[in-house]
Amino acid sequence: VMKIYHNPPLAEWAEICRRPALDAASLGPAVNQILEEVSRFGDEAVRKFALQFDKVHLDRLDIGLAEITRLANQVEPDLKKAIDQAAANIRAFHRAQAAELEMVDILPGVRCWRKSVAIEKVGLYIPGGSAPLFSTILMLGIPAVLAGCREIILCTPPTPEGSLHPAMAYAAMVAGISRIFTVGGVQAIGAMAFGTASIPKVHKIFGPGNQYVTCAKQLVQQAGVAIDMPAGPSELAVYADQSANPAYVAADLLSQAEHGVDSQTMLVCSSDALSQSVQIELSRQLEVLPRKKIAAQALENSKTIQVDNEQTAMALLNVYAPEHLILATDRAQELAKAVINAGSVFLGHYTPESAGDYASGTNHVLPTNGYAASYSGVSLDSFVKKISFQQISRQGLFSLGPSIERMAAAEGLQGHARAVSLRLQDFVPAIGPDRKKI
Amino acid sequence: VMKIYHNPPLAEWAEICRRPALDAASLGPAVNQILEEVSRFGDEAVRKFALQFDKVHLDRLDIGLAEITRLANQVEPDLKKAIDQAAANIRAFHRAQAAELEMVDILPGVRCWRKSVAIEKVGLYIPGGSAPLFSTILMLGIPAVLAGCREIILCTPPTPEGSLHPAMAYAAMVAGISRIFTVGGVQAIGAMAFGTASIPKVHKIFGPGNQYVTCAKQLVQQAGVAIDMPAGPSELAVYADQSANPAYVAADLLSQAEHGVDSQTMLVCSSDALSQSVQIELSRQLEVLPRKKIAAQALENSKTIQVDNEQTAMALLNVYAPEHLILATDRAQELAKAVINAGSVFLGHYTPESAGDYASGTNHVLPTNGYAASYSGVSLDSFVKKISFQQISRQGLFSLGPSIERMAAAEGLQGHARAVSLRLQDFVPAIGPDRKKI
Repeated sequence: VMKIYHNPPLAEWAEICRRPALDAASLGPAVNQILEEVSRFGDEAVRKFALQFDKVHLDRLDIGLAEITRLANQVEPDLKKAIDQAAANIRAFHRAQAAELEMVDILPGVRCWRKSVAIEKVGLYIPGGSAPLFSTILMLGIPAVLAGCREIILCTPPTPEGSLHPAMAYAAMVAGISRIFTVGGVQAIGAMAFGTASIPKVHKIFGPGNQYVTCAKQLVQQAGVAIDMPAGPSELAVYADQSANPAYVAADLLSQAEHGVDSQTMLVCSSDALSQSVQIELSRQLEVLPRKKIAAQALENSKTIQVDNEQTAMALLNVYAPEHLILATDRAQELAKAVINAGSVFLGHYTPESAGDYASGTNHVLPTNGYAASYSGVSLDSFVKKISFQQISRQGLFSLGPSIERMAAAEGLQGHARAVSLRLQDFVPAIGPDRKKI
Repeated sequence: VMKIYHNPPLAEWAEICRRPALDAASLGPAVNQILEEVSRFGDEAVRKFALQFDKVHLDRLDIGLAEITRLANQVEPDLKKAIDQAAANIRAFHRAQAAELEMVDILPGVRCWRKSVAIEKVGLYIPGGSAPLFSTILMLGIPAVLAGCREIILCTPPTPEGSLHPAMAYAAMVAGISRIFTVGGVQAIGAMAFGTASIPKVHKIFGPGNQYVTCAKQLVQQAGVAIDMPAGPSELAVYADQSANPAYVAADLLSQAEHGVDSQTMLVCSSDALSQSVQIELSRQLEVLPRKKIAAQALENSKTIQVDNEQTAMALLNVYAPEHLILATDRAQELAKAVINAGSVFLGHYTPESAGDYASGTNHVLPTNGYAASYSGVSLDSFVKKISFQQISRQGLFSLGPSIERMAAAEGLQGHARAVSLRLQDFVPAIGPDRKKI
């Protein structure tokens, strides 16, 4: 099913690990025009594009709390329970990410510290489409609330009736989000970036989306709004050795492949026999998968790479820098230490990626497209900034001042030096004359 | 000297806090052409642009360790000592930022954790120009080394002789950086983003620069290279009440104004008398400042805002979101608690901004242009990404599995559900038939 490579030489790794080129830039002009109209005409433009793209006439853009509650109550009890459990786990994991104040007494009288402060206004974008992605509401909403963001808004495309899916309403309630706008696409990104009469302007925009939304996020980032990270199609790489269960490996690869035809999956194998069994399992399980057509197409662009040993496997996987990495081996704990580039790592035979997608507590908004080499997934950190503080006493400035003066002078910035000299001269007049040579 | 506003109404705050529009986008085509040539022709293009823009013919692009050492030895002992003290303080403050492993046992058999892993390859850009900005080498190099980045390279424009300023060589040695390229401008950003025969490709590019460099960083970011943060002219806001010393306040404002004609300074005052004294001090101190011409021009675009009380002052300053904020008041510790948006905060009368610029230990690469509302300054965090890990046992999957299956089914992703069901059926055959309804 997948294309198979045997011990590819190092020179070919970059090519094997290359993702299909994303053509978000070519969408620029079209996306930019929508953004400009939203920036100029606000709600009016948002309504116009909702009618044009979502085929929905929106009277009001937001959904009131009473309506959210009514919708949420329609959710079946067992799904509510599942969402509750996932939310509790996500909350527990993200709560552990809260940063303590880092206070350092550099010298007597020179105290420096860093404090986490929530980003005041954040906007969460949840894509629409065939299925209601309520799990992403938990992944973005729970850390936003934990961080203490004062204004948290959520935009998501309207259902054909101009409303919100009940499971999304329930997930929002559980996360603690009550300002919801049934606005999607580029117009939602524009509204959150520039603000409209109904939708407040935010400082940072989070969430996945199609290539238009991705392009819009890039464009508003250049206009001064922060974004969570650049986005691309979802990815899974699996390392499997002879200890792996081929049925599990195949199921994990298919869970990724069913996301979309552009989903990226890669299997790196140190056992020939296993690699063959996985191909057989893939064909078998594919047959009974509801989203068979999508998954089959995604698999065609996927690769199995046969390598001689686990060292080579880990080296190759670090070059690939996958969003998700499953280590399907008894030696997962050992190999996890060798992971340098990955978004989220799943250890052993009983840790499917879908655990992290939904309920184990880790975040599922993760860097794709090789960005795992430099970006982290969404976490509590994503919703705060860290401000540095310092307080210096007379004694402290007396100790530190000469170094500041000397360095500032060497950089040709006498004004910087004088801000220190002026103070030192006041409280150490005895050394005044001496200091003038600086 | 500065334009004065008296109790401006809330409706005018946004306008008062507006920065001059940056026109980096209009440079796009010119910058893009240089980037493309560097991407295609590598070192050859880098040499061509060095000759064109820096008027320097570069035989080799890098400076060897022996040459770095030779240059570093030329630095005067007192400057060495100052740099040593600054480096020790920066190291102490940034070492305290190291993140511990966050391990959370979500449920029995469901363990999740996050680990900081250094970004493998980073590039530091240090601008050239009239003065050697060796302090920025400490600010970027020390956290990069502390984080454990494996490949750290530094690019900076060549001196007219095609070499490196001795103080920069010394700062690089102290920071622990030995791969230095005398390459500047857009061609340096392109070389680090795409790689050339001499200059390795990196995953993330750090450092300040002029508008061409800023534009180049934005463009390579879209091409997949991470950057530290968007850049703009440097900024200082000072809050001062009647307890402030007008001479100190004026000196601090001038230390910012001397950076460049586009430097932004703002004084927010709750005392009329003080505001007047500061204007007088500004005129007086300006006369004797070597970079008088630059500072005077910067001050002309600057604002003094007279407000009735400190609450209004802090509210206005949070709207402005300055890169640097000095609280020149006896009540600095109280007011610091009200800071929501700022890059770095300086408390009290003896904490000039220049302390943080050089030697107290905090980082001076900070968000400008209002980005302090959503971005943090450079820190150890900037040189790592956090990877999440999870390991689930059979027992753990038994507890968590049903929630995963239920949520995946509700999102229409049966492949995700099956990756769990398949495993559960294997080790809990008794509940097999029951599970099929999912």
